[in-house]
Amino acid sequence: MGLDTDYQKIPRMLLDSEYPIFEFNKKIIDATASLAVAFKPNLAFYESMGAAGLMSLEMTINHIRKDHPDLFIIADAKRGDIGNTSRMYANAYFKTLDCDAITLSPYMGHDSISPFLEEEGKWAILLALTSNEGSADFEQLELKGGNMLYEQVIITSLEWGTVNNIMYVVGATKASELEHIRRLIPEHFLLVPGVGSQGGSLQDVVEYGMNDRCGLLVNASRSIIYADGTNRFEVVAREQAAILQKQMEVALKEKNLI
Amino acid sequence: MGLDTDYQKIPRMLLDSEYPIFEFNKKIIDATASLAVAFKPNLAFYESMGAAGLMSLEMTINHIRKDHPDLFIIADAKRGDIGNTSRMYANAYFKTLDCDAITLSPYMGHDSISPFLEEEGKWAILLALTSNEGSADFEQLELKGGNMLYEQVIITSLEWGTVNNIMYVVGATKASELEHIRRLIPEHFLLVPGVGSQGGSLQDVVEYGMNDRCGLLVNASRSIIYADGTNRFEVVAREQAAILQKQMEVALKEKNLI
Repeated sequence: MGLDTDYQKIPRMLLDSEYPIFEFNKKIIDATASLAVAFKPNLAFYESMGAAGLMSLEMTINHIRKDHPDLFIIADAKRGDIGNTSRMYANAYFKTLDCDAITLSPYMGHDSISPFLEEEGKWAILLALTSNEGSADFEQLELKGGNMLYEQVIITSLEWGTVNNIMYVVGATKASELEHIRRLIPEHFLLVPGVGSQGGSLQDVVEYGMNDRCGLLVNASRSIIYADGTNRFEVVAREQAAILQKQMEVALKEKNLI
Repeated sequence: MGLDTDYQKIPRMLLDSEYPIFEFNKKIIDATASLAVAFKPNLAFYESMGAAGLMSLEMTINHIRKDHPDLFIIADAKRGDIGNTSRMYANAYFKTLDCDAITLSPYMGHDSISPFLEEEGKWAILLALTSNEGSADFEQLELKGGNMLYEQVIITSLEWGTVNNIMYVVGATKASELEHIRRLIPEHFLLVPGVGSQGGSLQDVVEYGMNDRCGLLVNASRSIIYADGTNRFEVVAREQAAILQKQMEVALKEKNLI
């Protein structure tokens, strides 16, 4: 469940509270936690509110840890910098904020990623093939050896970590490429955004992306959290989340995984 | 001047104040502003302190705007995401925080960058060839057509903006490549980190990178702000900044730019 919480889009009656972003998240989280395996706050939305936004994010993460301790928390941050700076980002998301995983841009190479792999039990989620139009600009460029850039990102980064500390972002709108990616990385978990508002199909993702331990974290954000703008918003969000959860449950049963 | 302000490295006597990161920045800024053209806070260092860190960053930026209104402010953030998320990052750094420019990772392509180019008078600074070891992993890979990835990032992104809203990051430790990059983009400003602690030479940067309107923002961070750990830290920081400023002044005079 993506927590892309936008002050402009949350129900107006929440705006009277001191931390409206947190109040919205809390209600969404409590309504949907039993249907989800992970929450993924999108950092841009919190940063756009300044220090108060970061405070709401801290409160949100603390709430998940306290009331829903089994759920996985992904900081959707797309970070990556020289080593000493990535070390500070790892501190920010794995220590100051108690997240389990962070999304990272691989552009700057191994020393921009390795600080995130040194933390026991934490995960680095590397951008591979994203769901946006611009993925054609560089990610899908062909390299001299024949691989596309996103394939080389996967191949090269396999040497940096293991199936237990690296995942990859593969957009759901590229389901046709999932089959190919699964051949490169049969065992790794994939974070798959783009189901819902971005138009990706869950059926395709499951068909081409699921492996024998599931291997998928399928994300939906806007199509669930903004499904309703009234004081019933969390009820409707739960209904929308339940539709996706049911589809996922059927798929997992078909593959004898549950 | 890079503001990579690390709670572990600032003089101990500042730790009693309510916002030690801000107090450190304020003294460094006031001591060096007359020698600098820009301040570049590195977001990782503020995020690692949570909401309190972001508050110190807001106070730092407000202080520069108030007391040193002619100086340029670069959010060194290496952001980039799908369009609606990059729009929120643009809000965060160009509106909530009144920065002039932000560093961006180009991996996700044009729609991850374009929201930053829509703001009048603001700048997107794209990673091209960085100063770290990992730049060999992807940035320097050869594409099928013969360009290296970082060259293609420059060539492709030239169509997205102008010399007045795009700059490029080129690490000072790659001074030998600067001459080549200047042929690709003779007019653009380059943000050049890596002078100082990372070992880059200012002479080389000036020799190969300077153009007829200077075209360089040369950054030093740790070698200046942590030059001294006593209660004279801002005096020593100014001395260190003055050495670089003098070298730059000599270079600008040799090229008849001042």
